[in-house]
Amino acid sequence: MTEKCNILLIGSGGVGTIASYALEYAGKSAVTSVLRSDYSRVVERGFSINSCDYGQIAAFRPSHVVNSVEESKKYGPFDFAIIATKCVPEVASMIDVIAPAVTANTAIVLVQNGIGIEAEAKARFPNNVVLSGVSMIGSANQNGHIEHECKDAIKIGFFENENYDRAHLEKVCTRFVDLYSNDRNDCEFDENVKFSRWRKLVYNACLNSVCALTGVDVGRLELFGGVDTIIREAMREVIAIAKSDGVELSEDVIDFMIRSDDPVYYSPSMLVDIRKGNLLEIEVINGNPVRIAQEKGIPAPYLTLIYELLKIIQRRTMEQKGMITVPTERPVPK
Amino acid sequence: MTEKCNILLIGSGGVGTIASYALEYAGKSAVTSVLRSDYSRVVERGFSINSCDYGQIAAFRPSHVVNSVEESKKYGPFDFAIIATKCVPEVASMIDVIAPAVTANTAIVLVQNGIGIEAEAKARFPNNVVLSGVSMIGSANQNGHIEHECKDAIKIGFFENENYDRAHLEKVCTRFVDLYSNDRNDCEFDENVKFSRWRKLVYNACLNSVCALTGVDVGRLELFGGVDTIIREAMREVIAIAKSDGVELSEDVIDFMIRSDDPVYYSPSMLVDIRKGNLLEIEVINGNPVRIAQEKGIPAPYLTLIYELLKIIQRRTMEQKGMITVPTERPVPK
Repeated sequence: MTEKCNILLIGSGGVGTIASYALEYAGKSAVTSVLRSDYSRVVERGFSINSCDYGQIAAFRPSHVVNSVEESKKYGPFDFAIIATKCVPEVASMIDVIAPAVTANTAIVLVQNGIGIEAEAKARFPNNVVLSGVSMIGSANQNGHIEHECKDAIKIGFFENENYDRAHLEKVCTRFVDLYSNDRNDCEFDENVKFSRWRKLVYNACLNSVCALTGVDVGRLELFGGVDTIIREAMREVIAIAKSDGVELSEDVIDFMIRSDDPVYYSPSMLVDIRKGNLLEIEVINGNPVRIAQEKGIPAPYLTLIYELLKIIQRRTMEQKGMITVPTERPVPK
Repeated sequence: MTEKCNILLIGSGGVGTIASYALEYAGKSAVTSVLRSDYSRVVERGFSINSCDYGQIAAFRPSHVVNSVEESKKYGPFDFAIIATKCVPEVASMIDVIAPAVTANTAIVLVQNGIGIEAEAKARFPNNVVLSGVSMIGSANQNGHIEHECKDAIKIGFFENENYDRAHLEKVCTRFVDLYSNDRNDCEFDENVKFSRWRKLVYNACLNSVCALTGVDVGRLELFGGVDTIIREAMREVIAIAKSDGVELSEDVIDFMIRSDDPVYYSPSMLVDIRKGNLLEIEVINGNPVRIAQEKGIPAPYLTLIYELLKIIQRRTMEQKGMITVPTERPVPK
């Protein structure tokens, strides 16, 4: 029997748990999952899963379930460390969290939304390969039950790293694709991570963000006129910023994304999060593109204002969650 | 005994009811108030009022209380017809509503927020004087009880009318000021309506609107960074559009408005309305300035996006109120 590949996983929401199931199901990996709020329940009962790819699973436990990264180290060293949490860098650094378990040969796999998500990993671990996972999956974790509705389609690529030639990066990447792929899912090598991420941002920085801001699904946003008045202009800004960053997106992407949820009154993830009172991934979805626009001198007033408005809403959510407090007396200039 | 002046009033919210009280208290007017939802209650029990200007009033009834404009006509003809409703022209035209009671000598008094509110009245009644009331009053009607917290300070002026010289307009206007003024309130002649309205818009199109969009009060908006990132820029746009419309506002108005609620965590009216699920006056507060910017070629991306976002929220509110419905199946292009 071939020895299995050790993989660390942080983040067992809908995306991360299906990733761990996919890896274990393929049979070549032993996943060590670091859990916090779900730890006791999963140790006792496992995850229950209702999956369009894998059917009903009463009790799924990855090979190892631990409640801290420190504890995970006894199941290492890890060839891959997957981060599948939401990316909210203004609240917590996931690179800080996994750092104790990262060794010289650990490739870091970021299965997260947004642009510029790799910067911190590359700065902290310049000699480690950093991979990108762009996931299309309709999956959510509700108190340890995973409801998985759309086929797991994930594109895995590598972020450029000046310390390695592309052949090495590609070899590490295709190994992960091989570990992840199975007869039920759709995992492919992403030849151009930067392109894929900018392309997905056309949806996320515009439709997803504006649905969150206005509290309506994409169908209503269109019926109420917002697709023509807001979304097309914001998407043109994304295309212009991408271009300044070396990525050529065709204008066709605008209508492709606008029509991508047809014919559903679809509530995108940021709208769902707002309704649940959750934090949003605004720094990597909204903030980083705006910062690139500022650096490159690309006018982006719509994306800038959308970002600034969402920042206020993010602070409101943080206050509601007790993460920040405001002074009892409003501070005013003397 | 001098005969009293007949005044018609549409809109008995916090502003309108205190206006009718002020006019009756001054003793020179007989107010005919057209009520809808409050009609039966006010006929039976009157308005109960708790007012910083007038104290506790157990049961206030204007001289005449009617439930339709048609019925009001038996107490006319009216020298003044006051419209003190919210201005939501996309839902209903108040000019249509009062039209049956307007005669050749009726001056129309618009005690409403925003810019360009006089256009419809002037188009429909070109030979009638149209007056402007800009009210600073903290007053709300809750099921027939009026809670009035800040001194009634109202500026009454006239909208220009090419069919009359200024002397005539001013004479009609100062007559209304005389009717309204009493020993408890603060009613003054507004020498420059256009200036007053643009100036107030610096607050309403920016702080009021952005608090509504983000769901936070002005204190939190400032603490969370939004005053510097959003409000100052949006206010500069208002000043530029006002200038293109012939109104010179000093840059000082920006800090004056930003500090005008100190030291209170103040929830402005549009935020209060959003929280209550009410419609907002977006066409006259947000839409008209943006349309003027477009006509005059003044760049106003922040005000434009704020308006477009609020339009979506307005439609959402209209759907929640059952005023519009969306098709069961989302319409998509063939």
